[in-house]
Amino acid sequence: MTLVNAYAATSASEPLAPTKIERRDVGPHDVLIEVKYAGICHSDIHTVRGEWGPVQYPLAPGHEIVGFVTETGSDVTRHQVGDRVGVGCMVNSCRECVHCLQGEEQYCLQGNIPTYGGLDRDGTITQGGYSTHIVVNEDFVLRVPESLDFASAAPLLCAGITTYSPLKRWGAGPGKKVAVVGMGGLGHMAVQIAHALGAEVTVLSQTLSKKEDGLRLGADHYFATSDPETFERLAGSFDLIVNTVSASIDISAYLMLLSLNGTLVNVGAPAEPLPVKATALITGRRSFAGSLIGGIRETQEMLDFCAEHGVTAETELISADQINEAYERVMASQVRYRFVIDAATLA
Amino acid sequence: MTLVNAYAATSASEPLAPTKIERRDVGPHDVLIEVKYAGICHSDIHTVRGEWGPVQYPLAPGHEIVGFVTETGSDVTRHQVGDRVGVGCMVNSCRECVHCLQGEEQYCLQGNIPTYGGLDRDGTITQGGYSTHIVVNEDFVLRVPESLDFASAAPLLCAGITTYSPLKRWGAGPGKKVAVVGMGGLGHMAVQIAHALGAEVTVLSQTLSKKEDGLRLGADHYFATSDPETFERLAGSFDLIVNTVSASIDISAYLMLLSLNGTLVNVGAPAEPLPVKATALITGRRSFAGSLIGGIRETQEMLDFCAEHGVTAETELISADQINEAYERVMASQVRYRFVIDAATLA
Repeated sequence: MTLVNAYAATSASEPLAPTKIERRDVGPHDVLIEVKYAGICHSDIHTVRGEWGPVQYPLAPGHEIVGFVTETGSDVTRHQVGDRVGVGCMVNSCRECVHCLQGEEQYCLQGNIPTYGGLDRDGTITQGGYSTHIVVNEDFVLRVPESLDFASAAPLLCAGITTYSPLKRWGAGPGKKVAVVGMGGLGHMAVQIAHALGAEVTVLSQTLSKKEDGLRLGADHYFATSDPETFERLAGSFDLIVNTVSASIDISAYLMLLSLNGTLVNVGAPAEPLPVKATALITGRRSFAGSLIGGIRETQEMLDFCAEHGVTAETELISADQINEAYERVMASQVRYRFVIDAATLA
Repeated sequence: MTLVNAYAATSASEPLAPTKIERRDVGPHDVLIEVKYAGICHSDIHTVRGEWGPVQYPLAPGHEIVGFVTETGSDVTRHQVGDRVGVGCMVNSCRECVHCLQGEEQYCLQGNIPTYGGLDRDGTITQGGYSTHIVVNEDFVLRVPESLDFASAAPLLCAGITTYSPLKRWGAGPGKKVAVVGMGGLGHMAVQIAHALGAEVTVLSQTLSKKEDGLRLGADHYFATSDPETFERLAGSFDLIVNTVSASIDISAYLMLLSLNGTLVNVGAPAEPLPVKATALITGRRSFAGSLIGGIRETQEMLDFCAEHGVTAETELISADQINEAYERVMASQVRYRFVIDAATLA
């Protein structure tokens, strides 16, 4: 067991502060990673504030982690010291259930072990990437291709895979019309990935304030959802809509933008149930679906895809002492498009 | 133009009564059908009572129609005098839009022309099957195989295709676990069709009162949804759930009965929006979908399938003067499982 520097929440209401957290000894199948960068995800904020359920403090969040392998366990075969690697939203799963065996560890029937705030199989509570080091089972460690800018690759581990997985599953590609709802951390990844997959991409954002960015990142069209005409104009237009907005939106109105057999996929989970008009589904054989991050194999596929297509997050690099301010700016939608913590400032 | 005997509503609040309605002259592409049997569908009741929007009276409902061709227009090629035929929920569509060209006339972008209460392309209001005769464009007339009992085949034209279409589309078949919610007119067809397709079939009904029927019709399992244990026991069980219940049910609870990538399809449309928890979708990549009857080509396929597998509705034959009483029994869920009007009693 080792103590390492971290930035952690000590209660639901206090700001995050520098502290030391424990990392387990490197087991036979573990790798020790020196963290270089960690992205700030909206869920970090919800979790440390106890908004998604009770939390054991102190808790260091962070599940968009990249760094270098500095030590490997005796039985590790997948990674070597010096490798550029990443860790996303999960650090373990049961590995025995039908979903784990299919490489869909995120849907592990025993529940996957989240990167922070989860009860690990050794009985400890997992601690995330706002820290200088992390010890992770090699099977949950990804290779980060050399060609990806390291800091800008960190958000791929959550925002990237969360959007890549439904885009792939529901067939975003040439000849397909894809809409992305929301132009935030997830949305700006979805635009780039859908574009790289060859789809015709439309952004549906509250206002046109980020239109230039959207078009630059690969969107073909950009509409403001605050303009009611948008919903008339685009009725029946899309094969696929990826909704990245975690607030409640009028799902039935968006469903009507789908063409026959179209699907609207939520990747966020608003706290309140969403009212869905059955007619919005029935009149176009439409589907309302949900998708949760992606499996480890698919996450590696996504990283390789992003490297091949030059896709990364647009990031703003911050030091550890700016984390609390960054949280306020995330809540106020003032980040374009992802904060990434320079882990050197935690040392 | 000819006047024919019918049973029609004269207002939203009055019982249906015998009357005469107009049928157009047989055009070059029309067939005249002498109606033999017409099923009573729940939607007949909603429509004539004005619950689904304003209606022009008098209105003869009925969209589960079988009979014999007694006259054909000069250019008719698909049907001959004497043929056993059927008419379902649509009698026309634009025939030019992408959906019509794909044989998905139910999703016609101009709106399909419903069999009753619709504005036909000649400007008249369509009148349904509670009548002795009907004139229909040949393309919307189905062949009813000889081996199907005629009265019991009538409900296939709505209840049959409405359940067959989603079962086929979402892959009900060998190795698939399918649940049918509701054991009424639609539900008892869904059970038979899913069973004939080779799926393992479970009925989810409020009580066990129709369990014997369900098992006799091909269900492998039967559970009462009034028993909360049902939802624990069946969590994550089904590849596909077809919800035939038009009342509001707790969709999120039913979604949790789906396994990974499972789909719950609504074929009914409750008046109120259904609250859907995004987590119920996201945690198993589940889908909530809707499906509307089926196209003409698929309806013919369904009739041929039912003939091949000996599938028909369980019916109670009534005379025209029993229609109003039958409506009350439908509303009270006292029909097992479909009333069919003997059109001879209209003469």
